[in-house]
Amino acid sequence: MKLSNLAILTATITGVAAAGFAASHARTPAEIAARKGQMQLISVHMGVIGNMARGNIDYDAAAAQEAADNLAAIGMISQTLLWPEDTAGHEESRALPAIWEDRAGFDAAWDDFSTATVALQGVAGDGLDALRGGLGGVGRTCGTCHDTYRASAN
Amino acid sequence: MKLSNLAILTATITGVAAAGFAASHARTPAEIAARKGQMQLISVHMGVIGNMARGNIDYDAAAAQEAADNLAAIGMISQTLLWPEDTAGHEESRALPAIWEDRAGFDAAWDDFSTATVALQGVAGDGLDALRGGLGGVGRTCGTCHDTYRASAN
Repeated sequence: MKLSNLAILTATITGVAAAGFAASHARTPAEIAARKGQMQLISVHMGVIGNMARGNIDYDAAAAQEAADNLAAIGMISQTLLWPEDTAGHEESRALPAIWEDRAGFDAAWDDFSTATVALQGVAGDGLDALRGGLGGVGRTCGTCHDTYRASAN
Repeated sequence: MKLSNLAILTATITGVAAAGFAASHARTPAEIAARKGQMQLISVHMGVIGNMARGNIDYDAAAAQEAADNLAAIGMISQTLLWPEDTAGHEESRALPAIWEDRAGFDAAWDDFSTATVALQGVAGDGLDALRGGLGGVGRTCGTCHDTYRASAN
């Protein structure tokens, strides 16, 4: 790589990081902001499907499939780089010490989510009942992980 | 689905949504929070690779590959559901009207990012020079999209 390209790249990365910081609390570690962002991404797509499941909006096979596809893509994000030891116990995070004390269990819980999103992806376009079943499977993995690895909201 | 399961599911979705709101400004639309979260996720993984490219940390093939794999997973997230018309011009977003005026161009810019992340994924484990080349390709798609579809920071 030419040095000039590296300079452009550095500027780009710095810009990305700056945008990230601006979008969150100034002192929030980047990994915590990214973890919260990941949950926001999950929330939006679960919301689309959940609103169909609850009858708040009409079932739309294409939109359901797209939301499920996106959940499956999010499920492919490895969590290894997002939960460094030095972010344990941070005041802006509800992540419990159990994550770092039982990292294998935590990773398995994420894998369960990933597996359930793939199952949902396989049925999302097959009608409302199939969608509800797949969503229920994903929802259970959310609940199990939150019960074990996330502090209750105050 | 049994009614009891639906109730659990509804509670889970509500919990997810509540967590999302707690993690961001109370009035921020969920899609805007998710979009910022998506950028945070990109930023963390670009940061890992960028720090290797700049020599701030030693090249680590496994970590580089994992970061690149995650960027490729993020690149698979379709943007259709994340940029609804009613989030255009929101005070908490730097998204420019060009996104909604030229949706095909915006989607193509995201596709360029996705394609570049797959290329990076293919070379991330092949040494520092290969990593820099792949990262440069991704960085250019970041820059092009931001120049066209994002307002400058104040």
